[in-house]
Amino acid sequence: MKAIQDYYPEEFAHCFGCGYANPKGLHLKSYVEGNMTVARFTADASLSGGHPGNAYGGLIASLLDCHGTASAAAFAYRERARAFGDDLPAIRFVTASLKIDYKRPTPLGVELVITGELVSLKDRKAIVALSLTADGKECATGEMVAVEPLRSPAATAAG
Amino acid sequence: MKAIQDYYPEEFAHCFGCGYANPKGLHLKSYVEGNMTVARFTADASLSGGHPGNAYGGLIASLLDCHGTASAAAFAYRERARAFGDDLPAIRFVTASLKIDYKRPTPLGVELVITGELVSLKDRKAIVALSLTADGKECATGEMVAVEPLRSPAATAAG
Repeated sequence: MKAIQDYYPEEFAHCFGCGYANPKGLHLKSYVEGNMTVARFTADASLSGGHPGNAYGGLIASLLDCHGTASAAAFAYRERARAFGDDLPAIRFVTASLKIDYKRPTPLGVELVITGELVSLKDRKAIVALSLTADGKECATGEMVAVEPLRSPAATAAG
Repeated sequence: MKAIQDYYPEEFAHCFGCGYANPKGLHLKSYVEGNMTVARFTADASLSGGHPGNAYGGLIASLLDCHGTASAAAFAYRERARAFGDDLPAIRFVTASLKIDYKRPTPLGVELVITGELVSLKDRKAIVALSLTADGKECATGEMVAVEPLRSPAATAAG
């Protein structure tokens, strides 16, 4: 099954966090599952926080950010009754703001499950609720405001 | 001049974003300058966002997160009239929450300047205002709530 990110046009597929065209990146893959979006990721030891064994805060932000923009696009495809990879220009969102609440340490070497749920979608603005769990325990939550750029990528793309 | 992170005890110096003990990490270095804290970082091409030439959102979050916790510790040293590297247990903060506003694309290959200012510090809780600029233009701002853990690192460290 292709991930949401696998449908990104090549010119927007260079993200370190989730782009298939970035050879050094993390290659996060997000999927639609029912009314939600889900991504799974296992972090290796190098992605440590200050104390070994737990992920650094920026990794958690990265996972939530990449999953959030993918989720916003997926929800917009659904709301507009469109299919990924159809003949129209691809739907793409970038992050306007992201609030992360760190609730407990996020372990390395364990599969992390990142979920997204649509809070609202109006015109070019989506709000997505995000959650990151490990072994069934919620380690972090996020709320993203994502926007659909109107103009050329060089003028608007944030990530 | 030693950076704030250079004073972290070795057991807390493994952060991918800013730890001297992480050989693969980004090694962000934060300094006290007057009433503020400042870090400088130039991102290479691999740290791209979706569109080449701009940083991925998670990198910006990482820089703000690592600089924010270092800033919180530095402001606590100042408020308590302590010196980095004194004989008392090191002051350490972890992120409770981080809100990032992405204002414009953040360029790669350009020196980014990240600043921190203390909003409030009460007991074990600090609020730090963060800003990231490139070529004098503000690309992102952040607000962090950081807390000073009471207990053992394994039980509390988030990043």
